[in-house]
Amino acid sequence: IPSLPDGYILRSLEENDFNNNLIPVLKTLTTVGDVTKEEFANLYSEWIANSHVYNPLVITNREGKVVASGMLIVESKLIHKCGKVGHIEDIAVDLSEQGKKLGLILIKNLVELARLKNCYKVILDCDAKNTGFYEKCGFSQEGIEMGFRF
Amino acid sequence: IPSLPDGYILRSLEENDFNNNLIPVLKTLTTVGDVTKEEFANLYSEWIANSHVYNPLVITNREGKVVASGMLIVESKLIHKCGKVGHIEDIAVDLSEQGKKLGLILIKNLVELARLKNCYKVILDCDAKNTGFYEKCGFSQEGIEMGFRF
Ligand SMILES: CC(=O)N[C@@H]1[C@@H](O)[C@H](O)[C@@H](COP(=O)(O)O)O[C@@H]1O
Ligand SMILES: CC(=O)N[C@@H]1[C@@H](O)[C@H](O)[C@@H](COP(=O)(O)O)O[C@@H]1O
Repeated sequence: IPSLPDGYILRSLEENDFNNNLIPVLKTLTTVGDVTKEEFANLYSEWIANSHVYNPLVITNREGKVVASGMLIVESKLIHKCGKVGHIEDIAVDLSEQGKKLGLILIKNLVELARLKNCYKVILDCDAKNTGFYEKCGFSQEGIEMGFRF
Repeated sequence: IPSLPDGYILRSLEENDFNNNLIPVLKTLTTVGDVTKEEFANLYSEWIANSHVYNPLVITNREGKVVASGMLIVESKLIHKCGKVGHIEDIAVDLSEQGKKLGLILIKNLVELARLKNCYKVILDCDAKNTGFYEKCGFSQEGIEMGFRF
């Protein structure tokens, strides 16, 4: 795993990251919408209460500001001898922090966390235009993501 | 949603389905390996303890035997105003029960369950050769599944 720039830290998401650039970072990925501090607190409690499922990580910069975030969901299955699958979700990197390999470092750490949690594989879904990035992270194409929107 | 053949029932997975053809059905999907009754009981407890995340359904035939099974995982996210995403996993139908639309009925019920649980979308990953089946279920291609195997 390449190392982070000096002063940058990778750590678990904390509740007060809500006011620490987390939302602007996520907005680089997709629609976030208006989320109140209380709604976030409820979601954060649910993640903490199910910490064997939800593993949210962030990278902070020299000023302690969140500049990248990502989630590892650990799913307990019956197949593969009661195997576990890691799902990487909601990867976002601040646009002003490009070129520092933060995305790659975040992914490699989420994969390492999945390994420590005994997952037999890690999967993620992405746009066709991002497959090259995930190949650099050691992934290869497994299948097709199908979706149904309400 | 098309109706099930007479005497067929769709219901939540029960602990004693372990000895009721569940494993042979799952073996039509992928590797299951040797799972003891105790290992299954532990997994089942984990699913029950996290029943807002794990929603396993089965279809049984006239004899009460499991002939299809599938899982809906409900993921609580921060994006989309603290939105929820349904993940459909581990869809398997007994080979001797083909042609009764059990797969389609199972998927449509899992999608309906996701709607009741306020998911803004449902996604699943499949082989390129199965996209036609999921299109018949109302899905369309969203992206590429990338994987990393340990
Ligand atoms: C590897 C990665 O970060 N994949 C993300 C996924 O986690 C996220 O949930 C989705 C949101 O898309 P949506 O706003 O269209 O639902 O985008 C991408 O597929
Ligand atoms: C819609 C559906 O049922 N998709 C399944 C997925 O849920 C399952 O976990 C995987 C197992 O594959 P594996 O044995 O190669 O890990 O196969 C398919 O992608």
